[in-house]
Amino acid sequence: MAGLVDKVKQATNKALASGSKITSTVALKEDNPEEGTVFLNKLSGKNLIVGVPGAFTPPCSSHVPGYVEQADKFTQKGIKNIYVVAVNDAFTTQAWKEKLGANSPIVHILADDTGAFTRDVGLGFDASGLLGGFRSQRYVAVVDDNVVSQIFVEDAAPNVTVTQAGNVLEALK
Amino acid sequence: MAGLVDKVKQATNKALASGSKITSTVALKEDNPEEGTVFLNKLSGKNLIVGVPGAFTPPCSSHVPGYVEQADKFTQKGIKNIYVVAVNDAFTTQAWKEKLGANSPIVHILADDTGAFTRDVGLGFDASGLLGGFRSQRYVAVVDDNVVSQIFVEDAAPNVTVTQAGNVLEALK
Repeated sequence: MAGLVDKVKQATNKALASGSKITSTVALKEDNPEEGTVFLNKLSGKNLIVGVPGAFTPPCSSHVPGYVEQADKFTQKGIKNIYVVAVNDAFTTQAWKEKLGANSPIVHILADDTGAFTRDVGLGFDASGLLGGFRSQRYVAVVDDNVVSQIFVEDAAPNVTVTQAGNVLEALK
Repeated sequence: MAGLVDKVKQATNKALASGSKITSTVALKEDNPEEGTVFLNKLSGKNLIVGVPGAFTPPCSSHVPGYVEQADKFTQKGIKNIYVVAVNDAFTTQAWKEKLGANSPIVHILADDTGAFTRDVGLGFDASGLLGGFRSQRYVAVVDDNVVSQIFVEDAAPNVTVTQAGNVLEALK
């Protein structure tokens, strides 16, 4: 039954918007594939959540480095950490991080391996044709003490326009 | 409904065994993530199908190189091609192939991104805890003109014992 329940959730969950609170209690995986350790509903201060459709896809592999390269500028603008969330397993996100050389201490590449966080925030889509299943849309949420203060969502997942690091940096309030 | 139907299929599909015919019409992806081009129900001659639980997982990353390194020996024993099948998307399998340096022309790393082939052959399992979803068991099927002549399946997916390249090479009839 799990598959069916998930599908209904996916259709009815309201997408994050400005003013939304992050309520998902899903533990996302960072360094340990056996256990999720990062809870995005428990962040304090100002942070970014960056949703990406797929590790190793060309758009995502050009999208994420912008955040790594400009990490210091985000810090100067008051961003504590940048959490990149992909519906991939943790072995894949770790290998991707290594390939990207994403070594900024404030950039965290997280595996939402079941897609549960992405469903909770209502920002997934059916990527079966290209990627085989449910994935994250491309979005950036600015989260201030657990409340979304700004959000940027691409119209189509392959696009990198409003969610580009430079654009978000410029638009940060 | 797709999720529910898949679950039932997963439970009822009979696992490949010696004498089984490969009937799955699923097109697996190799070089083009947009289109599956490899049909394992249309192989001629003697070939290997190697099911693996996950690209970039440590057991699979030590399992597959054995087939690459000993590809010539498999050729000498009459094996035309070796098809490694993982329930991962094609961007991930390609990146994995690159990382492994799996450049033997007879070794093909294939993405069963929806898991449909793996369900059809009845050799998947629920890997939600570690990998987030449905994955392939670790197995090697020797397929002779589309009929399984020998099959080796690990009791637990992380194990690499009976499916080890050296073991299969030795056991080949």
